[in-house]
Amino acid sequence: MTVRNSVTPRAAGEVASYDIETDVLVVGYGAAGASAAFEAAHAGAQVLVLDRAGGPGGASAMSGGEIYLGGGTPVQLACGFNDTPEAMAAFLTAALGVGADVAKIEEYSAGSVEHFHWLVDRGVPFKPTLWDSPTWVPPTDDGLMWLGENSWPFTELATPAPRGHRPTANDFGGKLLMECLAAAAESAGATAMFDCYVSTLIVARDGAVVGVVARQYGKEITVRARRGVVLTTGGFVDNDDMLAAHAPQLLGHTKVSAGTDDGSGIRMGQALGAGVRHLSAGQVGMSLIPGLAARGLVVNGLGRRFVNEDTYPGRIGQHALYRQNMGGSWAGDDTAVWVIVDETGFEDVPEPQRWGVRPTHVAETPGELEQLTGLPTGSLTATLARYNELATAGTDLDHHKSPRWLRPLTAPFAAIDVKAGIRPPSESGDRRGTGASVFTLGGLHTDLDGHVLDLDTRPIPGLFAAGRAANGLHGFGYISGTSLGDGTFFGRRAGTSAARNS
Amino acid sequence: MTVRNSVTPRAAGEVASYDIETDVLVVGYGAAGASAAFEAAHAGAQVLVLDRAGGPGGASAMSGGEIYLGGGTPVQLACGFNDTPEAMAAFLTAALGVGADVAKIEEYSAGSVEHFHWLVDRGVPFKPTLWDSPTWVPPTDDGLMWLGENSWPFTELATPAPRGHRPTANDFGGKLLMECLAAAAESAGATAMFDCYVSTLIVARDGAVVGVVARQYGKEITVRARRGVVLTTGGFVDNDDMLAAHAPQLLGHTKVSAGTDDGSGIRMGQALGAGVRHLSAGQVGMSLIPGLAARGLVVNGLGRRFVNEDTYPGRIGQHALYRQNMGGSWAGDDTAVWVIVDETGFEDVPEPQRWGVRPTHVAETPGELEQLTGLPTGSLTATLARYNELATAGTDLDHHKSPRWLRPLTAPFAAIDVKAGIRPPSESGDRRGTGASVFTLGGLHTDLDGHVLDLDTRPIPGLFAAGRAANGLHGFGYISGTSLGDGTFFGRRAGTSAARNS
Repeated sequence: MTVRNSVTPRAAGEVASYDIETDVLVVGYGAAGASAAFEAAHAGAQVLVLDRAGGPGGASAMSGGEIYLGGGTPVQLACGFNDTPEAMAAFLTAALGVGADVAKIEEYSAGSVEHFHWLVDRGVPFKPTLWDSPTWVPPTDDGLMWLGENSWPFTELATPAPRGHRPTANDFGGKLLMECLAAAAESAGATAMFDCYVSTLIVARDGAVVGVVARQYGKEITVRARRGVVLTTGGFVDNDDMLAAHAPQLLGHTKVSAGTDDGSGIRMGQALGAGVRHLSAGQVGMSLIPGLAARGLVVNGLGRRFVNEDTYPGRIGQHALYRQNMGGSWAGDDTAVWVIVDETGFEDVPEPQRWGVRPTHVAETPGELEQLTGLPTGSLTATLARYNELATAGTDLDHHKSPRWLRPLTAPFAAIDVKAGIRPPSESGDRRGTGASVFTLGGLHTDLDGHVLDLDTRPIPGLFAAGRAANGLHGFGYISGTSLGDGTFFGRRAGTSAARNS
Repeated sequence: MTVRNSVTPRAAGEVASYDIETDVLVVGYGAAGASAAFEAAHAGAQVLVLDRAGGPGGASAMSGGEIYLGGGTPVQLACGFNDTPEAMAAFLTAALGVGADVAKIEEYSAGSVEHFHWLVDRGVPFKPTLWDSPTWVPPTDDGLMWLGENSWPFTELATPAPRGHRPTANDFGGKLLMECLAAAAESAGATAMFDCYVSTLIVARDGAVVGVVARQYGKEITVRARRGVVLTTGGFVDNDDMLAAHAPQLLGHTKVSAGTDDGSGIRMGQALGAGVRHLSAGQVGMSLIPGLAARGLVVNGLGRRFVNEDTYPGRIGQHALYRQNMGGSWAGDDTAVWVIVDETGFEDVPEPQRWGVRPTHVAETPGELEQLTGLPTGSLTATLARYNELATAGTDLDHHKSPRWLRPLTAPFAAIDVKAGIRPPSESGDRRGTGASVFTLGGLHTDLDGHVLDLDTRPIPGLFAAGRAANGLHGFGYISGTSLGDGTFFGRRAGTSAARNS
């Protein structure tokens, strides 16, 4: 049986000749690939980057561009925060969830200031000013933002400091970030070929990866990589078969990708006996305006609060999808999630920062709102009474929202259905759907130097990985900027390791 | 680097000679392995079973012995239920959760009556009487029990019928089941060797599995399998590294196993490029008395109900662990789970069926109980008021508990901490711990005939799997009896396929 784009490795003995030869081959030209290519070229290796698209960018170029950095960066210091690597590591260990890779987090936190300077030296601009309220993307060019560090329970686990570093841009900074990184890789001497889809690794008799098979315009190309292959092919949110096998909770939601995250790198590694980690884990971008949520309530289909509404909005999203059944993964349970605000809270968020969101229903009493939303009779009434009581007393006993956002709500009340979606400034498309935009966090098992490890946890000779093709820092939690963060940080490591491999 | 018990495949060319030869080699002598061995021998193959323990049994022998069967078995008919394969498949598809394998479920349901007769023909006794209330293990020798089929939401998704078939035994029937199956395999001609730990597959140049490397009493043994190797090595709950990589939510809980479920078969397959599915999924046996829960409330650390208390208790456990943070997987959130009952409810469960459980706290008012348990002030008071209101009206609007169990609770009230544990009749040990006893559901990707599939979803020649070494029927949900069920059902398939392979 012939399989198109088979990931079954090809024996080097079956490859009569190579169409192209290089020292280091990087597969996938997003932020991780560009970082790997830069460092490999910088270390003196001949470097070729292949990407299936028509140019560099991938999902990285579509992102907000936030990079999670700390431990005392110049931007943090300019904004008055004395951060430490230890506080950063403590936050990430808690926030990246059960299964987070503590060794990688410590390495990443210890090297974060150096990594900041590396990015700046590559031309990535960070304005040293802070945006100081919950949001997905600030409407300003502020270079620093909070990503949940100042919300419960993290306030009790680590000294808070904002660590979301944003390239200076009008809104989404991912495009600018990718332009800088690709230009850097090119300046260092890396070359690139596009419209090349890599599906198969070429393996020597001793198990070492020595090249790849690619297809370009329907033609097969064999590429020899003398020192190693770096897989930076991204996650697998675009591969529904892989989602069904590993993360079926993520099926049916809006996919955060450039449409090319089909998990090819992960599968190529697996076919060779590489270990994988946390393939079920996913980030959940929730379709709500964080500024509105913080000023109101977020309730599930039983009209109950379930999280402090002022926390990192991706944490609200993960709670909603995995715990409140927003995704419909649990038979029977209601999938609704509503943001409840009053007029004061709604008006308090400047109109441009509402991203076009309008109330789905408005009512004078919570009882009326129950009827309009289909929430169980009495449910929202009880929730609101409890919340107002706690807000009046000044302490959110139940979910620990900061007193800064705690205020009794008064009529009229509005309910906003998260399924109605939001339209970020940089996107022309509409996100209307389930209320969630997702991507995958799991991937190949790698060590601190970017080697891909086999099932015996030994490095597979000649094979490296970074970015969302690898598991990176992540357990089952997520924080914005940790994907571009660990992709660029460990992408650099992987590129250096590959260049030194011979 | 030499790795002890390496799973990296060994090339057949490196094996000078084999210590043992057979047609079909079965690795692991639990219910799946015994079923595979029987069918392979029955089909005329020479069959050898290896197990790392001193005799057959594995986790199967320690279990309750329930097998999920339906579609109109003689036991169901004798108890007055006209079940159909369609209703069975509809229930399993919903109950086995997101990602459930619909093709396998349909095959399993269609073949269930035949499989019942096969078990009876192997000597497994099922008494045709029904135990008619929620429980983990009936205190009688009734051969039929409900496993959530008569609880919401399943009552709305499929015609209810009880499908938990129990071997006639004083309490836990797993030992009897294994005795019958092992005797059947032996009678059919299969032989066995014990204290043999298999860690490595032997692979021919064309990728076909042709044998294994085992260790017995410190000595390496090579075994040639002319027709195929069947992996029935169980799940990986005893392997903390694998749990950390795939299912960290399951770490730290009581492990349901014979201590030998280290995932060796799954890892051997992965090392050869086999696909895996749902490695994050786990069953959660919750440490509560189902009869008490059904008569009361189950509440989380915020004093809120979260599931209909009369459903399959494993579903309560999964909700508690994955959604209510019983496992502590989510930073900050309270991990407590309490069963709340009143005196009437407690006394209504006969003392022997309470398995020694005593109230952790008793109080005259829910407010007092809040103080004793540490639940937020006002929380349990509100929950109980709401529950009593719904119970009085006769409809559980929130969680849809059956009217059969709906009754306003009256003082005095008791709270039972699920962490206090329960002590099933057949176990001398104490389960005190987190409130959860767990095992893994994910495993190798197999087809309907038990072939292990590679990353291109092609069968790996000579390699078969069943039981918890394979993913089987399961998505992220679970129902008692589906593991012994799909293990024996698809174990038979795997044995037959291996015997026919040449």
